[in-house]
Amino acid sequence: MTTRTLLSSHNKEIIIGFDKPFTMIGERINPTGRKLLAEEMKNGDYSRVEMDTLAQVAAGAQMLDVNAGIPLADEPKILAETIQLVQSITDLPLCIDSSIIDALEAGLSVYKGRALVNSVTGEDESLDRVLPLVKKYDAAVVAISNDETGISQDPNVRYEVAKKIVERAQDYGIKAQNVVVDPLVMPVGAINDAGKQVLQLITRLRTELKVNTTCGASNFSFGIPNRNGMNAAFITMAIGAGMTSAIVNPLHAEVVQAVRASDVIMGHDPDCSNWLVNYREPQQEGAGGRGGRRSRRRKS
Amino acid sequence: MTTRTLLSSHNKEIIIGFDKPFTMIGERINPTGRKLLAEEMKNGDYSRVEMDTLAQVAAGAQMLDVNAGIPLADEPKILAETIQLVQSITDLPLCIDSSIIDALEAGLSVYKGRALVNSVTGEDESLDRVLPLVKKYDAAVVAISNDETGISQDPNVRYEVAKKIVERAQDYGIKAQNVVVDPLVMPVGAINDAGKQVLQLITRLRTELKVNTTCGASNFSFGIPNRNGMNAAFITMAIGAGMTSAIVNPLHAEVVQAVRASDVIMGHDPDCSNWLVNYREPQQEGAGGRGGRRSRRRKS
Repeated sequence: MTTRTLLSSHNKEIIIGFDKPFTMIGERINPTGRKLLAEEMKNGDYSRVEMDTLAQVAAGAQMLDVNAGIPLADEPKILAETIQLVQSITDLPLCIDSSIIDALEAGLSVYKGRALVNSVTGEDESLDRVLPLVKKYDAAVVAISNDETGISQDPNVRYEVAKKIVERAQDYGIKAQNVVVDPLVMPVGAINDAGKQVLQLITRLRTELKVNTTCGASNFSFGIPNRNGMNAAFITMAIGAGMTSAIVNPLHAEVVQAVRASDVIMGHDPDCSNWLVNYREPQQEGAGGRGGRRSRRRKS
Repeated sequence: MTTRTLLSSHNKEIIIGFDKPFTMIGERINPTGRKLLAEEMKNGDYSRVEMDTLAQVAAGAQMLDVNAGIPLADEPKILAETIQLVQSITDLPLCIDSSIIDALEAGLSVYKGRALVNSVTGEDESLDRVLPLVKKYDAAVVAISNDETGISQDPNVRYEVAKKIVERAQDYGIKAQNVVVDPLVMPVGAINDAGKQVLQLITRLRTELKVNTTCGASNFSFGIPNRNGMNAAFITMAIGAGMTSAIVNPLHAEVVQAVRASDVIMGHDPDCSNWLVNYREPQQEGAGGRGGRRSRRRKS
């Protein structure tokens, strides 16, 4: 038994699944904390969105998250326009990301294919408003494991919230395989057992609730130095624990390398062929690269 | 319940354990494949051994492996001299590494402290010769999970070999906590499910046999490019699965970084203090390093 979440664009399908290579969802198309991008998007200038799209595709993202959360702007309109622009230049399936229900609907109404809606929480208001939309558009949905009481430090409580969302989704006719749970990655700099907590939760979500998982992996390293080094290790260990996708910055080569290596280790890169394509040395001698050397070539 | 293997030098103790930071055993003092070093050691010139010792200590190794396997040389004498030299310049506990029983005994007889003997296999001849020595010198021992039939591709067979070694050790009065099992890491370039195999085995060894584990981690990437990138991910995932030590090259910064990050994720680096010491940015601003930057400083 495996769990598979099928997403698509107008002409491309991708499956997030236990038996599939890990799915990297590019996080760059998001004006949060990017003043210039926010200003441009607000004014209908999507040139930077276009660059972010192409760069993430080139870097190896399998899906792209699209967020248009700009204060005092017409988010539904901007999100719909952004999605149309992105779909005009890439066929990667998209993750439609908003906390505003009208924006999600505007995005879904123009989206070609089967989107991943980001997100629903365990709060009743969220469940009651987001799930009907997910059903109406036959989409999949990211389920964030917090509710009215906030984010529990107890992974068992977070598990129960996830279970409640999956059950509520089923009440709306949405299959469990179309709910991708975000177990909520907390910053290890603030909460010392954040790693153990979330790894344990990821394993339970996979083995007991049997759902796919995703997360904002970089949140783990918030506030500590050498974030890419920490993020690479965190994502590797999370994949080992059973995580099947994550929202990441695919322009961070260390993180992408960790994901590709994890695919090899998990047995999801037959004959290491994706690894070889990306890291084969220009002139390979004998049995392969020696430990001490670092030459590598990235596929662009 | 936790499992702890105590090793020591004349004045320093280290514990390999489920509840401890991961133990990196430096692999550099080994003439295999190093012609110049072999020639020098054979001639009683230990200057390179001295450099390798100091470099590995500086790079953060917690133990050092010492091997003197040189064809047609007096291995017992050279191993004993090397151990004495190394112990004269560092107080890290050592791993005494030989396939020759007289060399192991020569090494143990001069060693100050409690050594890790590397290694015993599941072959009767090995068990009958190595285990009495381990008992005599009150040492700990690396148990390699192969026997007369070779290395099984079936992790369950390798588990049974490990179990047999642990039981035989107990017959000799050696506690299970003093047997550190090497589950045998195979090259993923040759055996595509080598990763899944060994991760599953590591988890069983920890949860069922309740022993510490070690491995030659870099063997995983033999024959493929970007070995350090793959080794870093492999060791991270192995730590997540329960591995507690490995024989590595501590001069490979990517691998050391992966181990330090893994300690943070596993909850074995309280307040991330070791991570901060090693990667704090020269001038840290606000909440810490931003995702996009890469400046870092290594403690030397």
